[in-house]
Amino acid sequence: MPAAPIQPVILCGGAGTRLWPASRGARAKQFLALESERSLFARTLDRVAGPGFLSPLILCGIDHVDAVRSHPEADGSRVIVEPLARNTAAAIALAVATSEPEQLLLVMPSDHIIADIPAFHAAVDAASALARADWLVTFGIAPERPETGFGYITSGAPLGDGAYKVERFIEKPPLEVARRLLDEGGHSWNAGIFLFSAGAMRSAMLALCPDIFRAAEAALEHGVSEGVSIYPERGHFTRAPSDSIDYAVMEKHDRVAVVPVSMGWSDVGSWQAVHELAARDEAGNACAGDVFLHDSRGCLVRPESKRVSLVGVENLAVIVDGDDILVMPLDRSQDVRAAASARQ
Amino acid sequence: MPAAPIQPVILCGGAGTRLWPASRGARAKQFLALESERSLFARTLDRVAGPGFLSPLILCGIDHVDAVRSHPEADGSRVIVEPLARNTAAAIALAVATSEPEQLLLVMPSDHIIADIPAFHAAVDAASALARADWLVTFGIAPERPETGFGYITSGAPLGDGAYKVERFIEKPPLEVARRLLDEGGHSWNAGIFLFSAGAMRSAMLALCPDIFRAAEAALEHGVSEGVSIYPERGHFTRAPSDSIDYAVMEKHDRVAVVPVSMGWSDVGSWQAVHELAARDEAGNACAGDVFLHDSRGCLVRPESKRVSLVGVENLAVIVDGDDILVMPLDRSQDVRAAASARQ
Repeated sequence: MPAAPIQPVILCGGAGTRLWPASRGARAKQFLALESERSLFARTLDRVAGPGFLSPLILCGIDHVDAVRSHPEADGSRVIVEPLARNTAAAIALAVATSEPEQLLLVMPSDHIIADIPAFHAAVDAASALARADWLVTFGIAPERPETGFGYITSGAPLGDGAYKVERFIEKPPLEVARRLLDEGGHSWNAGIFLFSAGAMRSAMLALCPDIFRAAEAALEHGVSEGVSIYPERGHFTRAPSDSIDYAVMEKHDRVAVVPVSMGWSDVGSWQAVHELAARDEAGNACAGDVFLHDSRGCLVRPESKRVSLVGVENLAVIVDGDDILVMPLDRSQDVRAAASARQ
Repeated sequence: MPAAPIQPVILCGGAGTRLWPASRGARAKQFLALESERSLFARTLDRVAGPGFLSPLILCGIDHVDAVRSHPEADGSRVIVEPLARNTAAAIALAVATSEPEQLLLVMPSDHIIADIPAFHAAVDAASALARADWLVTFGIAPERPETGFGYITSGAPLGDGAYKVERFIEKPPLEVARRLLDEGGHSWNAGIFLFSAGAMRSAMLALCPDIFRAAEAALEHGVSEGVSIYPERGHFTRAPSDSIDYAVMEKHDRVAVVPVSMGWSDVGSWQAVHELAARDEAGNACAGDVFLHDSRGCLVRPESKRVSLVGVENLAVIVDGDDILVMPLDRSQDVRAAASARQ
């Protein structure tokens, strides 16, 4: 752990439809208990609890404040309530604008899994010196398969301590390119986890996306605070262009480093991923709740308060949420969007 | 239609688990609307409404009286409430014991479908003369496939009018035998539909299963009547051995005839059968209720008051009933019993 404590910044906005019907509206993916008894958000907070870290700064939308506050793990955390969703650059600008220049900020999505927390902490340690030297550091995930659902980061010149200058960011590639990237080595998945000093990011934003930073600053100036909650003013925040931190800053800046790390990371981006991460019985079934199985294998069942009976099925997801029941082969998990959009 | 009106006797006992979870307890299969808007019981009553038929005599268990009475189609029908289930021989004995000897009784299960009602009426017509001549007549279904789930009836010497003396009854056969029976011809499925005079059946029962008939008679004698309802006394009825009319009488009697008939009959004995009988969309899906389908084919969905979304599945049954949700390939429909018994 570094000498000066790091400020965790938890990005808790967004809901997503990839885990519909469990994830929707106010019940965003990060608040679900998926393969564990505890929510992804709670486990994200766990990851940065303890020495070396300040109490987290949480950024969320107005719809999610109650869910955040319902987590005892978030007690005492400051919460910045985004008046509307303006993507990650504007959210990070809010965090940067409320921090001292020399403060290191560790920015993390709230809906990922990191199984190997010591490896994560070691990577943060390794990145700290660079961050203090005004590098914007991103953590690259050692790729395990030719995944087409993530962006990639190409490592350039070594900077010591397992870090590299970023040579370039690669958009979500087609399968052929993803295979080549995996074979070549030197490419990591872009997981959206960053470490930087507030001052370095402020300078970068003022140079590369001043509209976003100025809008965030003005929204804070005209906003209100209630206890540990901060409510930036909507009108000013609305003027911030909606852009990701990757597009707005990281891809354009010349002092960006990557620390590749293998830490059991998953973005839990589909019901298939949930099934793979969950504890399974000998037949490969992952069931939480009242499920009867007869001659059924490789299934993921979330019966909620209902009673699900499976007879003679394989590799199927059966997800119950209120009045909605989704039935889908796990390997068709990407197609859940069709149902999610039809049901909204 | 015959000159003297026929007394329909509707056997409405039993529940069965083959259509679990929709069919269970008081909500027996005969009271479900399956491939139609109306229940199987209602359509059974329709079949014998009109000239040539008396108002039906309905035999049911105490659990099913409310369901029977909730059908306006049953208004004015006499109902004999069996104090406990004692199989078909004892139920038929109750009907026989309350009828004049010369009265023809047409005994039918309440949970079958007959699509071609004119063909059914013609077969009843053809059987009437034999029944009046003290034959016990059974209606044999012209077999459509080598079915192993039904018993078979072998036709013997012709008796005129398309009827035959029954040569023998064959138990549910293995597939090989079922194929041979289909190829040979001269064999019908035993559908449990009978026509006979009360007097002929009374004599047969007194000769072949006097315990059953005497128990039924005594139960009626010690029972009570309330309006159109008759409640045989439990203690006496309990003494009736539990036996099917096939075992107790038909297989042992020497004056049994069969009238083979092709009349679009189905016992609706599985969810697969329900799917086959139901109206289906172009992709072969039969859905009643709020169902979203994406790239899904050949499915049967009963969402009840829930909302079911299918993504990328084929030939699947998804049956919702209260808190129970069954998911099963249609061709595994026979295995539903595993879930039904586990869930009871």
